[in-house]
Parts: sequence; structure tokens; C-alpha cells
Amino acid sequence: MSFKIACIQLAVSSDKSKNLINARNKILEASKNGAKLICLPECFNSPYGTKHFAQYAENIPNGESESKTYVIGGSIPEREDSTGKLYNTCTVYDPEGSLIAKHRKVHLFDINVPGKIVFKESDSISPGNSLTHFDTKFGKIGVAICYDIRFPEMAMIAAQEGCIAMFYPGAFNMTTGPLHWELLQRARALDNQFYVATCSPARDMSATYNAWGHSTVVNPSGTVIATTEHEEVIIYADIDLDEMKSFRQSIPTTSQKRYDLYTKVTSIASDSK
Amino acid sequence: MSFKIACIQLAVSSDKSKNLINARNKILEASKNGAKLICLPECFNSPYGTKHFAQYAENIPNGESESKTYVIGGSIPEREDSTGKLYNTCTVYDPEGSLIAKHRKVHLFDINVPGKIVFKESDSISPGNSLTHFDTKFGKIGVAICYDIRFPEMAMIAAQEGCIAMFYPGAFNMTTGPLHWELLQRARALDNQFYVATCSPARDMSATYNAWGHSTVVNPSGTVIATTEHEEVIIYADIDLDEMKSFRQSIPTTSQKRYDLYTKVTSIASDSK
Repeated sequence: MSFKIACIQLAVSSDKSKNLINARNKILEASKNGAKLICLPECFNSPYGTKHFAQYAENIPNGESESKTYVIGGSIPEREDSTGKLYNTCTVYDPEGSLIAKHRKVHLFDINVPGKIVFKESDSISPGNSLTHFDTKFGKIGVAICYDIRFPEMAMIAAQEGCIAMFYPGAFNMTTGPLHWELLQRARALDNQFYVATCSPARDMSATYNAWGHSTVVNPSGTVIATTEHEEVIIYADIDLDEMKSFRQSIPTTSQKRYDLYTKVTSIASDSK
Repeated sequence: MSFKIACIQLAVSSDKSKNLINARNKILEASKNGAKLICLPECFNSPYGTKHFAQYAENIPNGESESKTYVIGGSIPEREDSTGKLYNTCTVYDPEGSLIAKHRKVHLFDINVPGKIVFKESDSISPGNSLTHFDTKFGKIGVAICYDIRFPEMAMIAAQEGCIAMFYPGAFNMTTGPLHWELLQRARALDNQFYVATCSPARDMSATYNAWGHSTVVNPSGTVIATTEHEEVIIYADIDLDEMKSFRQSIPTTSQKRYDLYTKVTSIASDSK
């Protein structure tokens, strides 16, 4: 059994309504081309940057679907009315347009590579406090956002929970992109023997933050099966559950785990609480 | 603070005493060239293969060191007299020649890639039941063997325990080598922000098992800093603790972990006991 997915590497401008119309058109195009699950990039309704989050923030909107597909809505800045807090949030809709999952980015992008890039997302955004998996008619799927991909524990737990894929809307940059973007995706895929898909905004060199692009899909053997450069484009790939099963049988690490020896992860986890 | 390491990609024949003399000479050469910690490949005293393990097995020998360096003794088939069991075992000696650690391969190499490679190490070898870290004057170091590298939990625990590097003597093959050897090393290094070194035997196309070679050292950013093809050679690299610290400060994932959300690894671990 296999099904087609699409990652929309959207060109995102500072004009929010234009971004929404563009996203809608691209979703309809991907659906027409046979995609059953469509992913948008991180911050698809606004430029990426701490100064933009509040201005573009929304309450999580009601669902509405013309595409009749699952849509992983990249992320938008979410405003929580009760607390006034902002989150970097991914919403997921089923083919009927119902909101079936919401992931708030857990690991915020606070880095300082001297002379290259400094970014402190936690200045304006609050972290999420849960991991996110959702059911589809094809299987369970995990979702996390961008910097979350650097934390292997999230994908490992998704695999343990039976997920067949992890989707990471994300916007790596011109420093971290070439260094780590593909490596992290291939590592998550191979270590967990499932599919990994990432969806970046297209690169805009006139913006303050320049996304790496290179939206990619990796199969359970860690092989890139779809990728692109940095322009606006839709990439397509098949998630093939028979191939996943076959790979898990040939190099059966998933069933050879020695959890009796990994308990230290546990005690460290307990210590740090 | 930095120190030089060497990985000896040894040409291994079926002549055990010749292998030992060759290993000794190469260790002395690496020591003369300034290496302070020297690693030998998996099964450096014998060809790799289930039919060879019993014939070449030894009790773990007493230490003896002419090189005045730390030596990670790749692996040899170990015979445990009390049980008659065989293990694939790595011994580690300090500069005075004392045995300071012993790692028995935990995850045995049982794979079946149809039409490519079938191997069942567990037919002749018993698995180890513990993880192995040892102290040096440079810092704590973790060691595991070959197929162990496919299990990210081992390296994650080593990092949590304060290791500055993982060494994997290993003999990937002509199928799994090009697919996964470098990816796994780079993943372990980046995810744990420490050094990873692998040491393979040189390739012998007249043997029944053809090793991939490509002994490699990766820095804490996941970048390959030393590697080679498949001939007999010694590769050298510097383990630079200042660089490791600097990388951990610039992209501080090690200190940004959300162990409060990773507890599922724990409960799965408990369930499977």
C-alpha cells in the first residue's frame, strides 16, 4: 500500500492574504496531481523572524477544506487569548476539513553561531509541552517543527508509537542548512526506519531571514527520494508501506532493540525533572 | 585541549600470528606519529565470518604495551571458559598496558537483504549485556562494535554519561557500507555533539566477507574530518575539546533537551522487559 504526499515549498511574502491565497492554490494543484497528504512550510502566512510573530499571529482558525486531502498546515504564529502567549504552531486537518492535531514547537530556535547567525525565538515565542501524532487512514503520522528535528528523542518516540512518518515543516538557513538539514532528516529516517518529510519556505533573499529551501523526502533506509533547490515548487513522493516493511525485515533494528540496556535514558530523564 | 587519535585500517589475513605482528607494528608507527589513543578494527586477529569465530577465539589476554598509548583493541572472538560461550569483544588498554575496559558486542549482526547479503552472527556468538565507557586522562570515551552503531540509544547514553567520543571498530560490507556507514557516524556525532571514530579492516576481495573500509572520524558538528578508501592505512585526527565546547555553545541542543517530554522512551523500555 502506498500513497502520494506533497511538500509545498511556498514563496512567502509579507502580504498575509496573498500568502493564504497562494497556499490555497498550491494545495489544490497538489491535490489535483494525486497527493493525499499535503504539507506547507513553517511560517507559511508570514515572514520568519521574531519581530513578525506577534503581527501575524492568529487564533487557530476553523477548518475548511476544498482539497479533500489531509493538510499539515506548516506553521503559523498562534496567539493564545487566555494567556496572551504566542506559539509557533502547526495545525493538521483531515480531508473533511476538521482540525485533528495541533503541534506547538517544543524546542525553540535559540542559537548563536559567532559571525554566522544569532537567533532567539524564545524572546517572542513560548514552547509547546507535548509531542504530536495523529491518525490517518494510511497510518499514524508524527509532526514537529524545524529545530525540533535536532532532538532525536521525538522521532524515536513517534516510531515507538507506531508512526509511519515524521513531517517537519521547517526553515533552516544558509548556515545550518548546508551543514545539517539533510543529515538530520536521513538520520531520523534510518534510525527509526520510517519516512521523513520536510517542507521549507522558498528562499527570499530580500527578507531578513533567508530560508535554505531544499524540502526533502527520505525513505526508511535513509535515502533521499525527493528533493529540490530553493525556488517555489511542489515536491512529490510515495510513502510505500510495503517498502517500509521490507526494509524493516531486511535490517531488523526495530525489532532488535535492547531496551533492557537503555534504561539510563530513563534515569537521566527522571533526574532532570 | 586536543589530542591525536589514530584508526588503523589493518589488512587482516587468515594467519593469526601475522595479524598480531602487523597490528603491533602499526600501533608503534601510530604512536611514533604522535597518536595518544589508537584504535584497531573489528576482528583484527581473524577473518570476519561465523565459521571463523570459534577457531580464532581467545580468552581475554593480559595487557602488555610497548606503545605507551591508549589502545582500543578493535575486537577479537572471546571464549568464556566457564560457559563455553563466544563473544565479539573489544578490549581497551591504558598506556601502561592494563586492561581498563571490555565491550562485548551487544547488537549482533543478523540481517537478510534479499539478493545482497545474509548474515547471522547470533548463530555462533552470544550478545553482550552492558554498555561500555572508560576514563582516560583526556576524558571519558565510549566504545561499541559495528552493528551497535545502528542503535542510537547507546551513543545517547554515552553522551549523557559525559563521553567526549564514541569509537566503533566495525566491518560494514559492500551493501551496507555505501548505504549507511558514513550516515550513521555523522548522525551519532551531530545528535550527541561529540566525536565519532570508526575503524574497519582493509578490504580483502579474496575473503568471504568483503569489508567496506572507509575508517572515518567525525567532529561534533557531524562533519567528516578524516577518512580513507579501503586499502590498509592509518588515519589520524585531532579530538579538540575546545572545538566541542564551542559547538555545544553555538547550537546548544545538549542543554536544550526536554527530558520531561521524552519519558515515553522509559515506559516502552519498561514494557519490553
